Amino acid sequence: MENEGLDTISSLGLAHQSGVTSAQVRKDLSYFGNFGKRGLGYGVSRLRKEIRLILGLNRRWKVALVGAGNIGSALYSYKEFRRQGFHIVGVFDVSPSRVGQRWRGLQIRHVDDLGAEAARLGIEIGVIAVPARAAQSVADRLVAAGMRGILNFAHRRIQIPPNIALRTVNLSIELESLAFAIKALNTKTSPDGKRRRT
Amino acid sequence: MENEGLDTISSLGLAHQSGVTSAQVRKDLSYFGNFGKRGLGYGVSRLRKEIRLILGLNRRWKVALVGAGNIGSALYSYKEFRRQGFHIVGVFDVSPSRVGQRWRGLQIRHVDDLGAEAARLGIEIGVIAVPARAAQSVADRLVAAGMRGILNFAHRRIQIPPNIALRTVNLSIELESLAFAIKALNTKTSPDGKRRRT
Repeated sequence: MENEGLDTISSLGLAHQSGVTSAQVRKDLSYFGNFGKRGLGYGVSRLRKEIRLILGLNRRWKVALVGAGNIGSALYSYKEFRRQGFHIVGVFDVSPSRVGQRWRGLQIRHVDDLGAEAARLGIEIGVIAVPARAAQSVADRLVAAGMRGILNFAHRRIQIPPNIALRTVNLSIELESLAFAIKALNTKTSPDGKRRRT
Repeated sequence: MENEGLDTISSLGLAHQSGVTSAQVRKDLSYFGNFGKRGLGYGVSRLRKEIRLILGLNRRWKVALVGAGNIGSALYSYKEFRRQGFHIVGVFDVSPSRVGQRWRGLQIRHVDDLGAEAARLGIEIGVIAVPARAAQSVADRLVAAGMRGILNFAHRRIQIPPNIALRTVNLSIELESLAFAIKALNTKTSPDGKRRRT
């Protein structure tokens, strides 16, 4: 909206774009502060800054990517991460054919170097992009290397201490959820009687 | 659990693995039928079959992948899709350097061929893995080609008719959500006062 030159947006406008009610928009935002003006809505530029602050995006995060296979390579090339402040500054693997390769100037290192590199570079977030069988051992290494958050793309649940943040992306589940939505649309009602669009 | 030889699982066991309460597990599953036995729990093998049926996974889905760049290539190589019954049978792009290439025997076609190929092969699901600026035009082509569901990886909201299912995967939002969770863990309470782990 800022790029499109919009100055203000109403809670109804935000509701329309985000798929929740305007009351929910106002309630959620008011939890964090008093950003809107009754009858005028929210200043787009200020709201964007406030939301980035709320999300912890008002800084640069250094990221270690473990797994230089297909998913890892795609994530490394995904420009939006850097745009949002997430910089992949270390790539790690165990495969002798990958370790030592260069990805746009960044040398892929053996996962044994993870701890030293994380300390040297100040890495706080680890991304797991390895096969399921290796996920937990990589998670353990990331924890030992002092990560504050882990994003797990492996198709397996991992266990980490509760003081470390965890997000899991399971690409299969997205397709499974889509298949279910197709079924639900076909029968005209989904379980809660609503048409969900996420 | 089936692979690990487990015969039955209690609602509490399922709750523990899925991060909701056992009451919620029982309530959710009972919506679809009477799968469990009081005091005995759920038969793992039967429950798995029932859940696959609920999710529409008791069949093969043919998938068109539009966008043969980094994300597209990673998705094409992601073995779990096929394991869950999702078969990418057509890959489409507009780039002259990509169209005509072969990915493990499958020739990348121009997106102009999407309609004809979808009809010929019986494709029902489309995956959008193109840059943001091209997302809506690809979505329009997928709709015209008769898709019943669309999985959108592009960093832009797309508009499609309400009778077509839509799921959006925004990889940046996962990292943003992780950054927020790190902040919340750091301040010891998240907005709702709970430690969320998703």
